[in-house]
Amino acid sequence: MTSRPLAVIVLAAGKGTRMKSATHKVLHPIAGKPMLLHLLDRAAALRPVRTIVVVGAGREQVEAAVQPLGVIVVHQAEQLGTGHAVLQAAGALDDFAGDVLILYGDVPLVSAETMQRMVARLHESDAPAAVVLGFRPDDAGAYGRVMADSRGRIKKMVEFKDASAEERSVSLCNSGLTAITTNDLFTLLRRVGNDNAAGEYYLPDIVMLAAADGHHSAVIETAAEEVAGVNSREELAALESGWQHTRRRQAMADGVSLVAPETVWFSHDTVIGRDVVIEPNVIFGPDVSIADGVTIHAFSHLEGARVEEGASVGPYARLRPGAVMERGSRVGNFVEMKKAVLGPGAKANHLSYLGDAEIGAGANIGAGTITCNYDGFFKYKTVIGAGAFVGSNSALVAPVSIGDGAIVGAGSTITADVPADALALVRPLQTSKVGWANRFRGLMRARKEAK
Amino acid sequence: MTSRPLAVIVLAAGKGTRMKSATHKVLHPIAGKPMLLHLLDRAAALRPVRTIVVVGAGREQVEAAVQPLGVIVVHQAEQLGTGHAVLQAAGALDDFAGDVLILYGDVPLVSAETMQRMVARLHESDAPAAVVLGFRPDDAGAYGRVMADSRGRIKKMVEFKDASAEERSVSLCNSGLTAITTNDLFTLLRRVGNDNAAGEYYLPDIVMLAAADGHHSAVIETAAEEVAGVNSREELAALESGWQHTRRRQAMADGVSLVAPETVWFSHDTVIGRDVVIEPNVIFGPDVSIADGVTIHAFSHLEGARVEEGASVGPYARLRPGAVMERGSRVGNFVEMKKAVLGPGAKANHLSYLGDAEIGAGANIGAGTITCNYDGFFKYKTVIGAGAFVGSNSALVAPVSIGDGAIVGAGSTITADVPADALALVRPLQTSKVGWANRFRGLMRARKEAK
Amino acid sequence: MTSRPLAVIVLAAGKGTRMKSATHKVLHPIAGKPMLLHLLDRAAALRPVRTIVVVGAGREQVEAAVQPLGVIVVHQAEQLGTGHAVLQAAGALDDFAGDVLILYGDVPLVSAETMQRMVARLHESDAPAAVVLGFRPDDAGAYGRVMADSRGRIKKMVEFKDASAEERSVSLCNSGLTAITTNDLFTLLRRVGNDNAAGEYYLPDIVMLAAADGHHSAVIETAAEEVAGVNSREELAALESGWQHTRRRQAMADGVSLVAPETVWFSHDTVIGRDVVIEPNVIFGPDVSIADGVTIHAFSHLEGARVEEGASVGPYARLRPGAVMERGSRVGNFVEMKKAVLGPGAKANHLSYLGDAEIGAGANIGAGTITCNYDGFFKYKTVIGAGAFVGSNSALVAPVSIGDGAIVGAGSTITADVPADALALVRPLQTSKVGWANRFRGLMRARKEAK
Repeated sequence: MTSRPLAVIVLAAGKGTRMKSATHKVLHPIAGKPMLLHLLDRAAALRPVRTIVVVGAGREQVEAAVQPLGVIVVHQAEQLGTGHAVLQAAGALDDFAGDVLILYGDVPLVSAETMQRMVARLHESDAPAAVVLGFRPDDAGAYGRVMADSRGRIKKMVEFKDASAEERSVSLCNSGLTAITTNDLFTLLRRVGNDNAAGEYYLPDIVMLAAADGHHSAVIETAAEEVAGVNSREELAALESGWQHTRRRQAMADGVSLVAPETVWFSHDTVIGRDVVIEPNVIFGPDVSIADGVTIHAFSHLEGARVEEGASVGPYARLRPGAVMERGSRVGNFVEMKKAVLGPGAKANHLSYLGDAEIGAGANIGAGTITCNYDGFFKYKTVIGAGAFVGSNSALVAPVSIGDGAIVGAGSTITADVPADALALVRPLQTSKVGWANRFRGLMRARKEAK
Repeated sequence: MTSRPLAVIVLAAGKGTRMKSATHKVLHPIAGKPMLLHLLDRAAALRPVRTIVVVGAGREQVEAAVQPLGVIVVHQAEQLGTGHAVLQAAGALDDFAGDVLILYGDVPLVSAETMQRMVARLHESDAPAAVVLGFRPDDAGAYGRVMADSRGRIKKMVEFKDASAEERSVSLCNSGLTAITTNDLFTLLRRVGNDNAAGEYYLPDIVMLAAADGHHSAVIETAAEEVAGVNSREELAALESGWQHTRRRQAMADGVSLVAPETVWFSHDTVIGRDVVIEPNVIFGPDVSIADGVTIHAFSHLEGARVEEGASVGPYARLRPGAVMERGSRVGNFVEMKKAVLGPGAKANHLSYLGDAEIGAGANIGAGTITCNYDGFFKYKTVIGAGAFVGSNSALVAPVSIGDGAIVGAGSTITADVPADALALVRPLQTSKVGWANRFRGLMRARKEAK
Repeated sequence: MTSRPLAVIVLAAGKGTRMKSATHKVLHPIAGKPMLLHLLDRAAALRPVRTIVVVGAGREQVEAAVQPLGVIVVHQAEQLGTGHAVLQAAGALDDFAGDVLILYGDVPLVSAETMQRMVARLHESDAPAAVVLGFRPDDAGAYGRVMADSRGRIKKMVEFKDASAEERSVSLCNSGLTAITTNDLFTLLRRVGNDNAAGEYYLPDIVMLAAADGHHSAVIETAAEEVAGVNSREELAALESGWQHTRRRQAMADGVSLVAPETVWFSHDTVIGRDVVIEPNVIFGPDVSIADGVTIHAFSHLEGARVEEGASVGPYARLRPGAVMERGSRVGNFVEMKKAVLGPGAKANHLSYLGDAEIGAGANIGAGTITCNYDGFFKYKTVIGAGAFVGSNSALVAPVSIGDGAIVGAGSTITADVPADALALVRPLQTSKVGWANRFRGLMRARKEAK
């Protein structure tokens, strides 16, 4: 960490037209978290004293998203270029003196380490006026080029359209990310003009303005992947894919077996233990933690769930927020849990809905069991005791409790509490009408022929 | 469009042995549609006055598939080469004068634009006798080579096995697709011989025969992917993959978020609105339309379904033909809909089967609800009114109607209509046998030990 | 096959630290089978008279896994290098004279054909002392290098860290796999020293020791993929991926249509017929056989199941061990079968659990049918006759039988046998409380407002 205070400015005023979306571009998610929040999280590692996000249209959406973070949102009424956008933050920084790091809301996966390198470079003995982040893409295309010496001191920086053929052959490009001290920043920005084809005020112009004053700037480099930006849903999908690839490798390195890594989708906050086996096609929504030794079978979908040691999930298990599977419990195919705790060693193996429920240790929930937790207005709780056995195809109408060790007969609709160790039955007599099926089929065949 | 009438000949007489299939090769599907129909659809954009498909074995299958299209199917009794195959179409064209475009049923993804370029080239001022479609594959292998000048005028065309080392080094290959006028076509074809290793009559020979008469032919080029052919199921899968890749990119460009594009499988006719979010592992069968603002959660499978604005599908939702989800309705996990309309804002969130049903606005279908729509002979309809609440684990025995605002108690089997705003209950008394479970367990443990 | 007897030594003493697993590295599965067993299966094709596995930690796990195979497990107490590891097998071979093939438990996918080539090379006329298996990786990295003449006679073999710059530029690397006669092996091994940086006894040193005695060795080459090793879960996933890729291509070549090959996961022992169509996202566990003409729809999961001709599986079907689908039968969405036989043409299309059941030809199992096969202690059987019709949402409490042609009314809990052709009903009267729902809503709204 440097000793000077740091402010972060995030530019997020781009229109995002190519996204074709009513959602602000920087709020589209990667791994379930808006890309802007990925960026702010990383920047937060540098402990900035102030963070300003500059937005154009969609200000309210952005404000709502960053509100818990204590971030200042300022408005750029007209989109007059990156230099103009940064200037909108001047008011919010008029009492601030220190370093400024300028980031882009649609370049969300820059690492804190790279940000830190940029700021630290400002403080090296040659004291550059500004530090820009360079990269070498496979196809440099229309990026601005950076000419620098071997120490990274910038000789010239040029927009692509103003570059000579020789300059265009330079592979080092400007990502736009910039570190600079506040004083220099706003002094220089106010001198930037818009005498160019687009009539825009360009942030990078400050580098050549400083040079004209005799102050050199510096470039440091990073991998092109790290500064990949999002202008379309296809680029968004590419960043998601890259993020997932990194996360999967991390999981495997940590001792998780992924039978088919490319079919497992993590959330930004998934926590997973060791010797966990994850079969193909498993999806983690936000807020899931998985302990050691758990097996997650194919086609499972988990969000807001805690799965304890040695539990077995799926296949086709759906764990929704508030689902807790305690040690060694099992949830099988076509079972949904929501705000429900399955006690140690308890089982719900088939075709069940467990909502707003507490299920004791070792209980057995039969196939087709449904907790009727909702009456259209309120939700009610079902409590099932340790060692209870709920017969198949039962409906438990909450609020209701099944005592420890109680047995519920198959096909019962339970509306009253069942005492511990009792058998509860709700079952009318079975009647058989002999020969009826034959007569019915005769009648129906005749009707079918008549049609 | 050219001013001369056009006929299209599609060669589809290949045995397709490597497919190891009882289904004719050209009827294997891509994106749910037989590859031959993909090709005929594209050719139809050129408005041919006549289309002839030449088939060998499996004629009946092909006839059945193209029957609605007014296409003529002719039979090639013996497979004596492509030249011989085209000749089989002569009878069907004896009263036709104009251009002929020769396509291959197992090269299905040639674009209409490329076909149009081929025909248009026939009409350019240098009036080539024939136009062949060339391509430059990564590995030219055993394809016939085309030697041409910079304007595409063919100097020589040669089968690979007759080519010199120098000729083999030419990268431009012949796809076999050919445009030519009828007169030239059949006149030349009748002069093609079979004096070659395979004893076959080769269509490309017409180019050198025309040249011997002093009539040059021309080649136009296209990308190798466009003329990729299908001789095996692996090649079929490769074309499917390419088709899906293109379709996914189109969806994203149109404003659809695909979290994991490579896990979403579209049908040839899928229609999707803007700001639709599609989670991983979603499959579209034929005839699905999705309006703006819909979210399709993971592991969903849709065919023959219409999903209106703002609706939420899945995860694990199965929409079958005739499923209609109106505005803002929700279908959740392990729910199947078939010939069923879910009204605006209505919900069926868990473990239900809704078949032959009409469900009113705002109705709530409890977990485990089953419409019993079939008696083994006929299907019957269930009507559920607006604002009705169907308790969990209910069976609705059709034909039956639940009135507006009615409530069905959990676990009911409903066989008679329920009036509006009534409560319907089908529920015997619940009985408890105290201590029974304890005695049962004692007995069973003893029995287990005895074993 | 050679005429001399063969022994196989598999080295499996590595610690596997990077796996971060309580399971021994060589027991991690590929396609559902421990990698060591893949290797032993392949080696078994050479009909070795003795097979020895050398293990360090985790000996009991390995012994349990190989126990049915008649393999000798010997213990290497200290990990002193590959030469030392092989020496541990000397005792188990003291009465054996013949060829020895040395393999690695974490290099599991070497083909039997390559093993055979190694042994056969020992017997060629130039009689090499040892045969090592070489390969040319993309990045030779720190592998030992092999310098050989054009016939594969080794001039020098050198560990990477002892190699000169020139030697490091050699692309042929030593995989470590070695064939040699017993006599030479143990005589040479006892002369190997540990005077090197790691203080280990290296198996490859025997080659240069033999050379010093005037006996040349030989190298034969194979593709780098074949000798890929597993040191981490990421490398394990890579081998799984490679195995699956090969298996999918084989399936397609055999006449199976895979709409999305990369989403279908086979087991090591999956058997599939011709003209089978497999939609995206299908997973095969062990012991599945699929006959000709079957369609397996998306999101299906099969293990221990037999599916006969023309049957239709899924989507979302779960077939567990003992599931048998006879000719033309159908299992639909959210249906689980376990130890259950579905007769010819029988159907279970929706949301059912069929466990320990026999279902006759042409029977129709309604949506939401559950066989109640477990009472917490024992499992019981359900028998459903040919042509029976089980109404939706029924619970069949086993042991119970439904006669041929019988009909079970929807929503019934069946506890007693139903005669053939009878109608069984378990259904109390339906009651309606007119206006109740209105009053209930009024009350609830008031309560909600009060909160």
